[in-house]
Amino acid sequence: MIKDKFYQYIQELQNTITSKLEAIDGIARFREDLWERPEGGGGRTRVIENGHVFEKGGVNISAVHGKLPKSMQAYFKVGDVDFFACGLSLVIHPKNPMVPTVHANWRYFEMYNDSGDIVDSWFGGGQDLTPYYLFEEDAIHFHSVCKVACDRHDIHFYPDFKAHCDAYFYNTHRNEARGIGGLFFDYCKATEDMSMEDWYNYVTSVGNSFLEAYIPIVEKRKELHYTKANKDWQEIRRGRYVEFNLVHDKGTLFGLKTNGRIESILMSLPPRVQWVYDHHPKSESEEEKLIKVLKNPIDWV
Amino acid sequence: MIKDKFYQYIQELQNTITSKLEAIDGIARFREDLWERPEGGGGRTRVIENGHVFEKGGVNISAVHGKLPKSMQAYFKVGDVDFFACGLSLVIHPKNPMVPTVHANWRYFEMYNDSGDIVDSWFGGGQDLTPYYLFEEDAIHFHSVCKVACDRHDIHFYPDFKAHCDAYFYNTHRNEARGIGGLFFDYCKATEDMSMEDWYNYVTSVGNSFLEAYIPIVEKRKELHYTKANKDWQEIRRGRYVEFNLVHDKGTLFGLKTNGRIESILMSLPPRVQWVYDHHPKSESEEEKLIKVLKNPIDWV
Repeated sequence: MIKDKFYQYIQELQNTITSKLEAIDGIARFREDLWERPEGGGGRTRVIENGHVFEKGGVNISAVHGKLPKSMQAYFKVGDVDFFACGLSLVIHPKNPMVPTVHANWRYFEMYNDSGDIVDSWFGGGQDLTPYYLFEEDAIHFHSVCKVACDRHDIHFYPDFKAHCDAYFYNTHRNEARGIGGLFFDYCKATEDMSMEDWYNYVTSVGNSFLEAYIPIVEKRKELHYTKANKDWQEIRRGRYVEFNLVHDKGTLFGLKTNGRIESILMSLPPRVQWVYDHHPKSESEEEKLIKVLKNPIDWV
Repeated sequence: MIKDKFYQYIQELQNTITSKLEAIDGIARFREDLWERPEGGGGRTRVIENGHVFEKGGVNISAVHGKLPKSMQAYFKVGDVDFFACGLSLVIHPKNPMVPTVHANWRYFEMYNDSGDIVDSWFGGGQDLTPYYLFEEDAIHFHSVCKVACDRHDIHFYPDFKAHCDAYFYNTHRNEARGIGGLFFDYCKATEDMSMEDWYNYVTSVGNSFLEAYIPIVEKRKELHYTKANKDWQEIRRGRYVEFNLVHDKGTLFGLKTNGRIESILMSLPPRVQWVYDHHPKSESEEEKLIKVLKNPIDWV
């Protein structure tokens, strides 16, 4: 069954990712919290804080089931049905402002009729990068790995899901993207071309590409020199990250409004944030260079 | 005309409040930004930052008019009508964690038919306190001043609007209040008992009470000793303030979704914020004492 196979997959992927991140950090370890959802299921939250490399990060899995909550019934335009959902969500906020924040998520959803047959199922997810200083070669590397993971399944996936990512992770109230994008896909359902098994293979290809997409960037930038001004800029930009997650992100808002485990949902929020009134970077600065790219998303590969 | 009289009133109140706050701070001055709304009207934003007493604060007025934006037509369940709205909004985040953050807002709204006659009009507003450490005498003082301002108009106002405030400024996803409340009222329209002139007198009574409600608390606490641990706690609690304003506050979300002036809307966000995973204050600590009150709002007077 796809659901068991995928849940097994994200459990192993969580182990692989947290082991790798701990090895790179060298000091901090992930704290693990197991939690149960009263209505059915639960999760394994792993959070790292105050590390040498990682200031704060969470790599969480969950598998929940039961009656579909009312608010989600309305959202999916279905009645009183049973559901199953599982996924891995991660957000990593490194300490050094030269290392980008990364977010990734891979998830699977099923809905059932009264006899317990699957009446609808889909995959969703993606991975995207939020730099504070723009190293073009890093952006190209991240997107190239995303493209390779996509191309072996369908050559339309990378351009489609890259565009979807740019459109989704967008702070409309600021007229700027959250970061430099990556992949975002949702409602990936069985079609003539793609069975659910094919989608499983695609989503796990992307999941398998995550460390290859992100870790070389961390390794290359984590010991770069930075100033207090660089750190201030990182904290100001992290304010924009908070704005996106709390105002626009559907996953976060759903979690908050459907009685999810708050600390697991909000682990995505950065450790330290500043809001400075009417802040604008200096003309021709590295900070302004980033903003220009966020205003006009680029095709990196 | 009430609209002209009230707009005159909030202009003068802005001057009174910013002058008083500058005098107390002693160092920082308010920066003033005049802005225009392309569709009609504009505002006068005043922001103070990095002061001796006030870490960040905004005292803003605006008066806007024109066609009611589509999103507000849906919200008010009206058609394509003209409107006028003016108000004063303030949020003050003091530096010392022993001094509470304060928020206040007083506003007036009119809608017109095709002939330009007023078909609906109302006042709204309130003032509320968000302490980081609970000094019960401060909470009692703030609520007592609110009550006196209310009681001379209607003895039901204080209990009603205090309860409304507790219900509104509530982080449902945390099961705790944003702060220790104060007053919140909205859609104050002409009735048999209260003409619009009476409401004008009430709302300006509350506006006039603001400095008396807040300033003695600032004076009493601004030089108290505090530690880095106290400051960390303040910054963690300010994260909850951000969560309320970005997830739940109707005014903020409306502003963000109706093309308001972003920097004037988001001046309410605190200067520095921390999100620590699964943070809980120590048992029997001053920090825990605050949380207990936020979980179960108290009748202070």
